[in-house]
Amino acid sequence: MPTVQAYAAPSAKAPLAPFSFERREPGPHDVLIDILFCGVCHSDIHTVRDEWGKAMYPLVPGHEIVGKVAQVGKSVTRYKVGDSVGVGCFVDSCRECTNCQAGEEQYCDRGMVGTYNAKDRQGTVTQGGYSTRITVNEQYVLRIPDNLPLDRAAPLLCAGITTYSPLRHFGVKAGDKVAVVGLGGLGHMGVKLAKEMGAEVTVLSTSEKKREDALALGARHFAATSDKDTFKKLAGSFNFILDTVSAPHDYNAYLNLLKVDGTMVLVGLPEAPVPLAAGPLVFRRRRLAGSLIGGIRETQEMLDFCGKHNVAADIEVIPVQKINEAYERMIKSDVRYRFVIDIASLRK
Amino acid sequence: MPTVQAYAAPSAKAPLAPFSFERREPGPHDVLIDILFCGVCHSDIHTVRDEWGKAMYPLVPGHEIVGKVAQVGKSVTRYKVGDSVGVGCFVDSCRECTNCQAGEEQYCDRGMVGTYNAKDRQGTVTQGGYSTRITVNEQYVLRIPDNLPLDRAAPLLCAGITTYSPLRHFGVKAGDKVAVVGLGGLGHMGVKLAKEMGAEVTVLSTSEKKREDALALGARHFAATSDKDTFKKLAGSFNFILDTVSAPHDYNAYLNLLKVDGTMVLVGLPEAPVPLAAGPLVFRRRRLAGSLIGGIRETQEMLDFCGKHNVAADIEVIPVQKINEAYERMIKSDVRYRFVIDIASLRK
Repeated sequence: MPTVQAYAAPSAKAPLAPFSFERREPGPHDVLIDILFCGVCHSDIHTVRDEWGKAMYPLVPGHEIVGKVAQVGKSVTRYKVGDSVGVGCFVDSCRECTNCQAGEEQYCDRGMVGTYNAKDRQGTVTQGGYSTRITVNEQYVLRIPDNLPLDRAAPLLCAGITTYSPLRHFGVKAGDKVAVVGLGGLGHMGVKLAKEMGAEVTVLSTSEKKREDALALGARHFAATSDKDTFKKLAGSFNFILDTVSAPHDYNAYLNLLKVDGTMVLVGLPEAPVPLAAGPLVFRRRRLAGSLIGGIRETQEMLDFCGKHNVAADIEVIPVQKINEAYERMIKSDVRYRFVIDIASLRK
Repeated sequence: MPTVQAYAAPSAKAPLAPFSFERREPGPHDVLIDILFCGVCHSDIHTVRDEWGKAMYPLVPGHEIVGKVAQVGKSVTRYKVGDSVGVGCFVDSCRECTNCQAGEEQYCDRGMVGTYNAKDRQGTVTQGGYSTRITVNEQYVLRIPDNLPLDRAAPLLCAGITTYSPLRHFGVKAGDKVAVVGLGGLGHMGVKLAKEMGAEVTVLSTSEKKREDALALGARHFAATSDKDTFKKLAGSFNFILDTVSAPHDYNAYLNLLKVDGTMVLVGLPEAPVPLAAGPLVFRRRRLAGSLIGGIRETQEMLDFCGKHNVAADIEVIPVQKINEAYERMIKSDVRYRFVIDIASLRK
């Protein structure tokens, strides 16, 4: 069984620390991947600190995984040794329900198997990408386009697909006016992707300090939401709003920025319910929806789209030894725009 | 100028009482209608009691109007004297904005001109259908199919279109599992219309006492929402939920009854905002939308659909002199399912 070096949280309160464990021996349909980079998602923090409950320790987080195929099972047809591949937020699902059959494994009726802190088919607790190697069924492995730098591609596996999927699913098209609320890991990908889809993008962010970045990332406009005039000036302006903010905020104010038949999609998960007025929905036939990552087929489509348009995340590469510090900086939104762990730091 | 007999609210606190006023002389594009029946909508009560603000007295409510054409302007092409016609919630709009051009006059950017308690192009305050005659531009007049009884057709002009429009707009189709929340004036029309569209309809109502009616109206199933098991048993069951309830209620509980990609549409307007959790939307890509009546083209489509399928409202016909009593009964939900005023009672 492949032994791997990792960083794990030993408990909810303790910092992440070195940890070693064994991956399963690759079965006929499995791919063993040498992990090269792993993006750091806010979900990692919520999970290791048990803020969402059900944490199983020791816990190795990480679901923005990029690496090279090191070994393939005898029945593997899609990948060969040396291929650049990725693994996102899940590594399995029931493969049988309507949603799995439709390629929407993220909505698997029996629950997708998360890349970490979940139980797989063998009953083993899954461990994530802050580690040197991972064994994954080839159906849940993605191909990374050759032209993308591997470190900057890692965040596409969660932040990329989380923003790409709703933009596509809800039909954003060239010429649409799209607002992206919040300019963090998700938001900065939303801006890049919506722009490449031909949309006219406005970034809505709390303060003026992100204006320059927003425009550099591809937004045509920027508006500070701390300025109350913003909500008057931009009323009825957008076809689509991608809301990436996970702190509670006033949905009603943002809904009023949509045109008739406009859609706002939540991809963040505020902890507490937010008071919602019926008026902004009813009087302009607006929609408030949610969206969760994306299925394998669509994730591959997103990666190919990014390859074609040369889109990748803006990142800050860190050695794994800096992960606890990185978490503290993320909580203060002090990162542009995603930390990515160089897994070479685990091989020293 | 045509003088009309009516019932009007003299103020927010006083009961409706006899009132007489003049309608405008029909212009070249106007139709003068002898009103025969007028449905009584809950909005009438909210407006005359100034619960939505901006009430202008004396106020003649009524926007579910059916009658016969009595006179036409010289340029009128669509209608002739004697035709059975209807007037719904609005009698004009800017006719120029994107929404008007698209036949979605209810979302007119400059605001539709309500059938009552609004200012028309001439600056006159509009007065509604609790009256003997009304003058309306032919573009805002609907044709009532010959086979529909005129009294039972009246509520189609608001309750009918309010429920038909979202069912159509959000793509309800044969075989879909549709829930209708609330079995009042709107809900009972929603059941009939969804059933005729081929949907398998479930009525969700507070208590068991509406079960029999729900099934008689065309629902295949009934579930009492006072039974907490209902929300477990029906989780993930519906493609579409038509929510007709205007009292505050837990949207989250109902959203959890939708399948992946399901839509819940609000057509009621709870006075206070309702706490909304992101989870039910995000984890199953569900949508919460709103919908407001319908445009003229779609209202005619709905009337033709009702003619073809012999759908009309279940009503209790009253003389106008019973209107104040009817309001009290409506507030107690004591009506099956719509009061309709026989306007002959105003001609005595």
